[in-house]
Amino acid sequence: MAEEFALIAELQRRLGQGGSGVQTGIGDDGAVLETQGMPLVASTDTLVAGRHFFADVGAADLAWKSLAVNLSDLAAMGAVPRWALLNLALPAGMAHGDWVANFCEGWQALASRAGISLVGGDTVATDGPLLVTVTALGVLQGPALLRSGAMPGDWIAVTGTLGDAALALERQLQLRRGEDPEVLPGAEDWEKRRLRPWPRWELGQQASRLGLRCAADVSDGFLADLGHILQASDVGARILVEHIPLHPALAAWIDEDWERLVRTALTGGDDYELILCGPPARWPQLQELARAAGVQLSQVGEILPAGQGLQLYWHGQQQQLPSRLGHVHAL
Amino acid sequence: MAEEFALIAELQRRLGQGGSGVQTGIGDDGAVLETQGMPLVASTDTLVAGRHFFADVGAADLAWKSLAVNLSDLAAMGAVPRWALLNLALPAGMAHGDWVANFCEGWQALASRAGISLVGGDTVATDGPLLVTVTALGVLQGPALLRSGAMPGDWIAVTGTLGDAALALERQLQLRRGEDPEVLPGAEDWEKRRLRPWPRWELGQQASRLGLRCAADVSDGFLADLGHILQASDVGARILVEHIPLHPALAAWIDEDWERLVRTALTGGDDYELILCGPPARWPQLQELARAAGVQLSQVGEILPAGQGLQLYWHGQQQQLPSRLGHVHAL
Repeated sequence: MAEEFALIAELQRRLGQGGSGVQTGIGDDGAVLETQGMPLVASTDTLVAGRHFFADVGAADLAWKSLAVNLSDLAAMGAVPRWALLNLALPAGMAHGDWVANFCEGWQALASRAGISLVGGDTVATDGPLLVTVTALGVLQGPALLRSGAMPGDWIAVTGTLGDAALALERQLQLRRGEDPEVLPGAEDWEKRRLRPWPRWELGQQASRLGLRCAADVSDGFLADLGHILQASDVGARILVEHIPLHPALAAWIDEDWERLVRTALTGGDDYELILCGPPARWPQLQELARAAGVQLSQVGEILPAGQGLQLYWHGQQQQLPSRLGHVHAL
Repeated sequence: MAEEFALIAELQRRLGQGGSGVQTGIGDDGAVLETQGMPLVASTDTLVAGRHFFADVGAADLAWKSLAVNLSDLAAMGAVPRWALLNLALPAGMAHGDWVANFCEGWQALASRAGISLVGGDTVATDGPLLVTVTALGVLQGPALLRSGAMPGDWIAVTGTLGDAALALERQLQLRRGEDPEVLPGAEDWEKRRLRPWPRWELGQQASRLGLRCAADVSDGFLADLGHILQASDVGARILVEHIPLHPALAAWIDEDWERLVRTALTGGDDYELILCGPPARWPQLQELARAAGVQLSQVGEILPAGQGLQLYWHGQQQQLPSRLGHVHAL
């Protein structure tokens, strides 16, 4: 308990200093927050050592990622990030000093960019693996971007590039098995993206202010997350797979191999990019916003009426849906 | 992953059906919630099997308690309970069917009374013990009740009775060690209170609407939680220990023994009652509200100016502060 209080005090000292709309932050029975009449968006994710991250990950990278996955959810709703709560379950007896300092450094590196303040949390000891739960809160300045918001005729777009994190994970697993992965120029970029994904909260909130109504983030894999949209909106989709944006080094490695393409860009997880859908009239404005924000934005297909299913075209040919869709959340 | 989706779907079906101010609940990247301009209160707690609850606890009791501890925090802030997020880390391979159904039953029994809707969460598998994290969100219809809100001259009051859960835990530990606890009439009430604490969200929000400014909940033990108020408000306090409200059966067991009194009512944890402080002019109104709500409310002392420390009087004599203050969060 004394240790728990000390840890909370350290997190409060390093991370919990006020912030926009914070009437009362860490240090009372709850935080008091001002949404100024805007709808609130709440999202939460738990990451488990050995399942969602390697148990030997650096504390700074872990902090970044555990916040990033939640910022990505806020982005996918179109919310402006505001506040976060942090629940840490630390293996009993784990040394706290450096680990906490590094965790705070990684957290703050992303939190300060996203404008998010830590306003609460809890720390407990566990006999099991390390767990990090983050709950992120944001506000909406326009409509929420919902999985159910897609309409036939909408374009489908994605931010950034897809598949990098999946291939980085594959190579990391090879290394850990003592195998020698192929030397690929540019692969260090993917590893960085796997460890420190950069969620698209800026474009997400701009899409909401623009009046768009549909988005999801790419966390389980592009086809799985697009599938959530199709199911919730009761629509089909045509995807032109050659328009899926790829890092040049990843494109070189895939080298027009369908199986490699599916395994990375179409079903690989942990990209934390956005899938956005919207009416043709709004495309030029969104494109302009993306350009101004320095975010790559690619149209990859079109929403179809219900009953049309998910159609994957590649170089003019319709392709078979892979039997195993989506990303399994396990290392 | 398939199992995770199935579990989420079951929680959504059983618990996540709309609710007040819920624009979008479970099933998207985040929940969209309407606070209608009222300040938001957010609180979160993690409970770990073998530390905060016995690993063999029934799922219904566990659900009740994990929600209750957070409702108690909302009550201590004066908030009206609205929404909750639930993060479950379940031991890998744990059978889900009955456990989830029972968990939902216990959750809903309390959530429906408190008017709180489940709007999000996450479920993960762990190789360690079961963990439950609940994040509770509420809104304020008056000032927040802060630990820093006490003023010299304020009365100090507590709801309900103190020490029941601590003695119930002590007896439960005796049983589990194979010892035969004393037969005490009324002890089954304490065990029920230990398993299913009933937080004071109703009186908490009424105190806020009445314009009170100070409260804390009794979770770590009366003296520890009062200590938080004294520290945050920079004040002292005089407590008339004979006015601390006791269950008649507990009073009979304590039998005017100072050590027993300290160990249960003064430093025992998990009562989830409220400590409230306020000016004399507001006492009759709060008393009236408590009476109408059927909540026992007892004045137990007075806030003193800074530098006066914490003074414990018992039958007219000042008593020594016990050297070990507060409740250690460990079975």
